[in-house]
Amino acid sequence: MRFLSDNTAAVSPEILEAIAAANHGLEVAYGDDPWTQRLDQVLGEFFGAEVRAFAVTTGTAANALALATLAPPYGAIYCHPEAHIAVDECGAPGFFSGGAQLERIAGEHAKLSAAALAAALDAHSVSVHSVQPAAVSISQATELGSAYRPHEVAALCEVAHERALHVHMDGARFANAVMHLGCHPGDVTWQAGVDVLSFGATKNGALAAEAVVFFHLGLVRDFELRRKRAGHLLSKSRFAAAQLLAYVESGMWRRNAVRANAMARSIGEAAGKRLLHPVEANEVFIDLGAAGKAALRAAGFEFYDWGAPASGAARMVVSWDQDERHAAALCAALTAI
Amino acid sequence: MRFLSDNTAAVSPEILEAIAAANHGLEVAYGDDPWTQRLDQVLGEFFGAEVRAFAVTTGTAANALALATLAPPYGAIYCHPEAHIAVDECGAPGFFSGGAQLERIAGEHAKLSAAALAAALDAHSVSVHSVQPAAVSISQATELGSAYRPHEVAALCEVAHERALHVHMDGARFANAVMHLGCHPGDVTWQAGVDVLSFGATKNGALAAEAVVFFHLGLVRDFELRRKRAGHLLSKSRFAAAQLLAYVESGMWRRNAVRANAMARSIGEAAGKRLLHPVEANEVFIDLGAAGKAALRAAGFEFYDWGAPASGAARMVVSWDQDERHAAALCAALTAI
Amino acid sequence: MRFLSDNTAAVSPEILEAIAAANHGLEVAYGDDPWTQRLDQVLGEFFGAEVRAFAVTTGTAANALALATLAPPYGAIYCHPEAHIAVDECGAPGFFSGGAQLERIAGEHAKLSAAALAAALDAHSVSVHSVQPAAVSISQATELGSAYRPHEVAALCEVAHERALHVHMDGARFANAVMHLGCHPGDVTWQAGVDVLSFGATKNGALAAEAVVFFHLGLVRDFELRRKRAGHLLSKSRFAAAQLLAYVESGMWRRNAVRANAMARSIGEAAGKRLLHPVEANEVFIDLGAAGKAALRAAGFEFYDWGAPASGAARMVVSWDQDERHAAALCAALTAI
Amino acid sequence: MRFLSDNTAAVSPEILEAIAAANHGLEVAYGDDPWTQRLDQVLGEFFGAEVRAFAVTTGTAANALALATLAPPYGAIYCHPEAHIAVDECGAPGFFSGGAQLERIAGEHAKLSAAALAAALDAHSVSVHSVQPAAVSISQATELGSAYRPHEVAALCEVAHERALHVHMDGARFANAVMHLGCHPGDVTWQAGVDVLSFGATKNGALAAEAVVFFHLGLVRDFELRRKRAGHLLSKSRFAAAQLLAYVESGMWRRNAVRANAMARSIGEAAGKRLLHPVEANEVFIDLGAAGKAALRAAGFEFYDWGAPASGAARMVVSWDQDERHAAALCAALTAI
Repeated sequence: MRFLSDNTAAVSPEILEAIAAANHGLEVAYGDDPWTQRLDQVLGEFFGAEVRAFAVTTGTAANALALATLAPPYGAIYCHPEAHIAVDECGAPGFFSGGAQLERIAGEHAKLSAAALAAALDAHSVSVHSVQPAAVSISQATELGSAYRPHEVAALCEVAHERALHVHMDGARFANAVMHLGCHPGDVTWQAGVDVLSFGATKNGALAAEAVVFFHLGLVRDFELRRKRAGHLLSKSRFAAAQLLAYVESGMWRRNAVRANAMARSIGEAAGKRLLHPVEANEVFIDLGAAGKAALRAAGFEFYDWGAPASGAARMVVSWDQDERHAAALCAALTAI
Repeated sequence: MRFLSDNTAAVSPEILEAIAAANHGLEVAYGDDPWTQRLDQVLGEFFGAEVRAFAVTTGTAANALALATLAPPYGAIYCHPEAHIAVDECGAPGFFSGGAQLERIAGEHAKLSAAALAAALDAHSVSVHSVQPAAVSISQATELGSAYRPHEVAALCEVAHERALHVHMDGARFANAVMHLGCHPGDVTWQAGVDVLSFGATKNGALAAEAVVFFHLGLVRDFELRRKRAGHLLSKSRFAAAQLLAYVESGMWRRNAVRANAMARSIGEAAGKRLLHPVEANEVFIDLGAAGKAALRAAGFEFYDWGAPASGAARMVVSWDQDERHAAALCAALTAI
Repeated sequence: MRFLSDNTAAVSPEILEAIAAANHGLEVAYGDDPWTQRLDQVLGEFFGAEVRAFAVTTGTAANALALATLAPPYGAIYCHPEAHIAVDECGAPGFFSGGAQLERIAGEHAKLSAAALAAALDAHSVSVHSVQPAAVSISQATELGSAYRPHEVAALCEVAHERALHVHMDGARFANAVMHLGCHPGDVTWQAGVDVLSFGATKNGALAAEAVVFFHLGLVRDFELRRKRAGHLLSKSRFAAAQLLAYVESGMWRRNAVRANAMARSIGEAAGKRLLHPVEANEVFIDLGAAGKAALRAAGFEFYDWGAPASGAARMVVSWDQDERHAAALCAALTAI
Repeated sequence: MRFLSDNTAAVSPEILEAIAAANHGLEVAYGDDPWTQRLDQVLGEFFGAEVRAFAVTTGTAANALALATLAPPYGAIYCHPEAHIAVDECGAPGFFSGGAQLERIAGEHAKLSAAALAAALDAHSVSVHSVQPAAVSISQATELGSAYRPHEVAALCEVAHERALHVHMDGARFANAVMHLGCHPGDVTWQAGVDVLSFGATKNGALAAEAVVFFHLGLVRDFELRRKRAGHLLSKSRFAAAQLLAYVESGMWRRNAVRANAMARSIGEAAGKRLLHPVEANEVFIDLGAAGKAALRAAGFEFYDWGAPASGAARMVVSWDQDERHAAALCAALTAI
């Protein structure tokens, strides 16, 4: 019974069908195909705004390419210490940007607050000697399973834009957050001021497809060249675009997220007082202690430790295709501890 | 009738079947899955050597990651002026390596010769002021559709290794070259001294899968970290590995290449004296002149101009799934010019 | 009465004399001159160890080149949040290394402790997804005017070396620290385990000369190439080497530091309870409050605010050529507040 | 009798006097000093245009920083195969720019022609797959001792600007070229369309000072940040600025160049038919053959071989402070061969 990561998930049937449907005949490569050419329109309708959208195959690529477009090599990128870009991408933002520096700002449940951002920017004495504040990156849902409310995103963006910083959102679990919030995808992105979104589909059922969605259209040409030279422009682009189109158009982005969120919420409830962070997506963080972890593992549950080695915390991630009996078993086991 | 590129091809059915076959249950992500874990063994048997093999999704990623592993930021990488890395990757080798410099060496049919390489290395005065010769990159088949014989590769590698340079082979069309040569895959790679191969599968029928194959095993850890931070470590790695396994194990690498090569050879024969380079893979370069191009285009053939705008040269690429009637029509049209 | 920075200082007469003495005849450029060729020996005797030493013109160059030699592009470099490399070098470590990431560790008086370093390394989960712990950088004296004791450096180096990290020391004010500690230059460097030192001379009286001193000799060739391609190999190298030789051989490194330290200590005593950090070099940090700052500025003293805008803290730096009457006046003014 | 390089020269007395004259009192660091603040005006008058000028200590830094400001990481920089940036800077342009690619264009006497540049640009098929043409870099005087006429520079700049490329001039020997041409410094720079000049002073008598002179003012802020993070912003900037001011205001730039040029011309005349390139600055290239070289070396002349090992070519460089008797002796020896 595997709760290791939503990256362990299989591919949703809608996606494989879309790939098969696109698989006929010779199509012009590198994006001049009918699937890719529909991306801007379909994602534009999805978000309710004019967008430019580009497919890549990994979240790290999406995030780092977006940030390299937003920040010069001498830029500072503000993020939470738990941000995926800071701890799980092997330094990709520094690589893609040519050296931009991450500035970490703490915050509860892995969320940045507008006040903390403003304070950090106030404390950063900007001169030719310092890195130049350039971008803020927030994760929706966060790495601790919480979700930013639209007004929280808006407040952050206001602080950022007042000082000429761009805002990037790492939406590896964007669908989960939006389904939890019950809002429109535009509400927590462009309506709140987000300039660029890494719109993840892979964890939620795609094979390998993430869209970098620009709400700020002026940055696009630089992005396209950076994507190519980073080896992230796919020759058979139609198959990446077809995944993203199916993700949105079939409604599976919603179905899969709702399903995973519901199981995660049950697990969170079963965790009771041991729950460490609000469950606002498909991840659950539980203070199990060494004994609790051992008991669950003995019972056949797989999951990762979280935080400092001695912390006793565990992370349970529910995949879109998680077996409901496994989730129920986990709830029962948690209640029994 | 589209002869633009083998990137326009669809996905071979063996590949889609392999993806579907891998699509069940929760598998550990990022390569700790049974498909990825068989890669080294299966590709090792394919090449007849101990190898370490890594999947990525594009040829540019494969080439640039391999070269960044072989060359320091102050390194020189020797290649042909027509090399894909020099003209079609938007500067990827410079990006991935942190600034390594391409040194171009001319040669007939886009091939480097051992003598020309030796002369270039002799002429390069090496000191703290110069870039440091680090790697040679050759393409098999070349960008002009020719193929290196095993003894040609061996002679190049000998020159390179004598002076402590590593050798990289861009094998975007490796299968086509090997089928033309009628040799064993090992004959033109490790047996001849190649250190790292970009083993392409995408053009020849995969969805998006290239293997970086290390015959020189000491370089591997650096590669793995570079791959991750470049966003080229796939979360659902099983599906990339499954493509590569099917590519080799089903024999489709051979079938698809043989089929495309045969059509290309016919087209080359039909081109007669207009043929610009020997047809040793699936590409045909023809001196059509402006009138010839116009005539073919009017007849419904799609292809790219090649070389200088006024050169009159055209490139025809045969895909693995090219319609044989289209190839026959092209032969007829060429004969008629 | 200027206490802005020791970078405002003039050049010590010993330095100008050494430059003039080197200024005759045609000497081979780029370091094959008699002055540069004495550097290793003279600095080796100074430190009591075999060293390789290289002149550059700025502290930023010294630090960033040293760190790029110690850390791969996917490396993590641990430092204090106040470290010059983190706040005053416009992202130079990221640039020179090709993207290495700074990991900040808090500590009193801008000092890292061995325990805090060990805890940070323990908490850093190392895998292909993370940056790879590679180097620790400490400043001697620190940016808050404190000095590491030899046993403190040794404890840090022990933690670092146990986990295969290299240790770099930013010694922009090395002479001031050593004079305060009363120890031998070797005691706080190689004897304690430091691998590479940025040995500053500019602030303490040189025109533009810092030595990168390697106690770990295996890293040197990489450094030499990085220095050249960063534009930090001087054509007329003799004049940089002559400065460093004079700095050490004339004893001015000691005289100038002793003089500045003494004035700084007096100012620190005059600050009384307002003193924020122990005065262990030539910098004094004082909690003046807005009114205190205004009063001192009205009285003709120039200095920089420090820390957050509203903090009330001020930094006074004593240069090697500070007018003693100005220092006395500052002491009197502080006593009077 | 040393004709190895003008980098072997000593420092001109005007420069040391200027350094000494600037050496009093505490001056604000990093360029907020009266010397640095006069640079724009004094160099503006020198060139007859509004300029922004920045001091650095090496030609490699000047060139690479200028080019990084002109070319994005995915840019192409066009230059001659003999260009210092291509062969003598250890890959600095690639490093500073984050990977920009050098495209070499052959031309007689190390000069690019407008026609060859236009042809190269025509042949470069620009798309998302290619590096993006961004800048042209020419050397004045060239690495083979020739000088571009104003109309040649203008023709090159016209081709470049028509296609939105910037033009950089490597003026390591700018004074020598201008004195040979008998033109105004503005004639071969901004009047002809040059955007940025590396204005060298070191070879011609400074200690370590080159000015990056921007005639295109919009690029300046990016340059300032790149200079800082590359470690090329000097803390005691006054001493670099003082050198550049003295270089121009004392007239030594002219005197020293005239003197060296005259000796070089005599040597070129003595070389007779063995002369390989016109002597239009202070360098002389002679086809001595192995025997000729050996004879001259036996007679006490020091110089470097040039070109391929077996070429028989030698380079003689005359420094500003060359002993005239040595030059006369070399002339006599050449006549005698």
